[in-house]
Amino acid sequence: MSVEPTTGPTVGPTLETVGWVGSAGEGVVRLIDQTRLPSEFLQIDCPDVETVWEAITMLRVRGAPAIGVAAAFGAVLGARRRGLASIETVRDALRASTARLRTSRPTAVNLFWALDRMDRVGEAEAALADSPAALLDRLLLEAKTIEQEDRAMCRAIGRHGAELIGQGQGVLTHCNAGGLATSDYGTALAVIFSAAEQGKSVHVYADETRPLLQGARLTAWELQRRNIPVTVICDSMAAQVMKEGRVQAVVVGADRIAANGDSANKIGTYGVALAARAHEIPFYVAAPSSTFDLALPDGSLIPIEERDPREVTHGFGRQTVPDGVDVYNPAFDVTPARLISGIITEKGVIAPVSTEGIRAMLLG
Amino acid sequence: MSVEPTTGPTVGPTLETVGWVGSAGEGVVRLIDQTRLPSEFLQIDCPDVETVWEAITMLRVRGAPAIGVAAAFGAVLGARRRGLASIETVRDALRASTARLRTSRPTAVNLFWALDRMDRVGEAEAALADSPAALLDRLLLEAKTIEQEDRAMCRAIGRHGAELIGQGQGVLTHCNAGGLATSDYGTALAVIFSAAEQGKSVHVYADETRPLLQGARLTAWELQRRNIPVTVICDSMAAQVMKEGRVQAVVVGADRIAANGDSANKIGTYGVALAARAHEIPFYVAAPSSTFDLALPDGSLIPIEERDPREVTHGFGRQTVPDGVDVYNPAFDVTPARLISGIITEKGVIAPVSTEGIRAMLLG
Repeated sequence: MSVEPTTGPTVGPTLETVGWVGSAGEGVVRLIDQTRLPSEFLQIDCPDVETVWEAITMLRVRGAPAIGVAAAFGAVLGARRRGLASIETVRDALRASTARLRTSRPTAVNLFWALDRMDRVGEAEAALADSPAALLDRLLLEAKTIEQEDRAMCRAIGRHGAELIGQGQGVLTHCNAGGLATSDYGTALAVIFSAAEQGKSVHVYADETRPLLQGARLTAWELQRRNIPVTVICDSMAAQVMKEGRVQAVVVGADRIAANGDSANKIGTYGVALAARAHEIPFYVAAPSSTFDLALPDGSLIPIEERDPREVTHGFGRQTVPDGVDVYNPAFDVTPARLISGIITEKGVIAPVSTEGIRAMLLG
Repeated sequence: MSVEPTTGPTVGPTLETVGWVGSAGEGVVRLIDQTRLPSEFLQIDCPDVETVWEAITMLRVRGAPAIGVAAAFGAVLGARRRGLASIETVRDALRASTARLRTSRPTAVNLFWALDRMDRVGEAEAALADSPAALLDRLLLEAKTIEQEDRAMCRAIGRHGAELIGQGQGVLTHCNAGGLATSDYGTALAVIFSAAEQGKSVHVYADETRPLLQGARLTAWELQRRNIPVTVICDSMAAQVMKEGRVQAVVVGADRIAANGDSANKIGTYGVALAARAHEIPFYVAAPSSTFDLALPDGSLIPIEERDPREVTHGFGRQTVPDGVDVYNPAFDVTPARLISGIITEKGVIAPVSTEGIRAMLLG
């Protein structure tokens, strides 16, 4: 993997979390290596499927929508990996590549949603394209469309969600569902950014989010860059911060939402939802329609990724658990729909949360 | 502070968390430097009040009962600091030293309880003692008595609490209320150790306990040494582990318990209690009568220590929060009595928890 160190964030309204640089035949996927933030801002270029697969697996790029966009661009890299000898060559390489990318992470459904879309376009266009290069161009266009739709989604979620946030409120969030998790400025954080754009003053409490500290490292960094007041707390402090009256709303993202509204999100979200309910604080999930998996009637069927215990035992630079001690490290949990006050999508807010309400919003 | 590196734990049934070595006139307070565990087992000798004060403040020795014992021994060091010219010299030095030690940490009431006891003995014996050396000997005897009572307390709490734990149960604990928090084998962990001694197989889930990771570093280490199966989880995973049916009881320690049973304990305990209630899992507090503060009608009056933000931002070797970002770091929270199924004391189990039940057990 080639590495391009830079001294600071690229300019512009968005963070350029993941994007395509160059032509379909020669270009690369460029992404911010989020494992290095906040101490280092580093963009890396992925020239092939394996480096994209590695970047997703190692959480260099993470967040359900951003994973979907990265995978779509990765599929373009894969489609050209056996050369452009024939349309069939490109189509078959695409199939193999999307199959490979599907194995990178199990929980975020946006990954599968984006790859399904690339597969469908590949199959359909293979019959129509004039040349292998034309097919490859069409695949890149599809990936760029996914990225563009993701940008529009962020803005629409922000717009709908901002209505739910009041002037001067404290808003707690868990993990990072911001610009670094999407192509624009996030899902949960889009709600906060949009409220701020409307002139509302908001104070964010960011759970640090063990084990990988996406809240402390990424959410705090994004909010600071946009001058939104933020206080980082340990995950274990969320209930206390609520008890002290500092929080009037919780907004989190999601990695997969079942047909009934049960929502998988970063481990710890469920505990936050329980605490919010105990304090009668509204708990919102912000996610695009691509995060819903209507094939699953409820959340018990969502596959939960279990990750390397070393994320827990060696997370901070030195060992914090004795050698030989067992560690359990589920990366996600599922918050039942009954604890969710509303799901903020790009099409509007689903509240109350129910199978019927979700179908009406997404398919109606 | 002189440092005595050792290569492993001292032998014997207990951990020798804190103790007195030598005569009243020449001895020192020896304690395990818990900030170095689990990577290093190091005992340090404190020759004067200031090193004991520093050890308490920096959490080299921590856990409400152990803080009480350390402070009592520290008071002996302080009583001799102006020499043994007269009984008044010793008495006045004691007064100044206990006043100093009271400022080391605010929440654990055992600190004040132990120092009150040393003060009372100092005042009473000053009138009776034959010599300054006899007064000092009497003070050391009182501190050793506090230590011995603490040992007996651990065993009695274990015996009473073990009745509440069933064969094959999963037990979740937060922070460290084990041998490293007491003079013998703990309060919350005493319940587990005693259940294991009765032949019950128990599997412990240990919350790592951010920010200072006493669960990951200390509880896991103690359980491993005693061959009790233990799985370390991040604090944010407790609710999920309960949802998965892995936990049948929660047992934690306490730093101060108000007259109505509201219990201050390490930050995060309140969230665990909320999760336990949501899953209908019994939630027990294990603490000696010295942890009760009957002068406070309820938990809202318990002073909550707020500690250095660097514990959160620079916890274990590398910076995890961007420079300039605000951090909130309360060290304790208060679990309301209504969430506590029972309080396990050395005198018996208080259940249900009420002002009347507490008074009957402690004073009856």
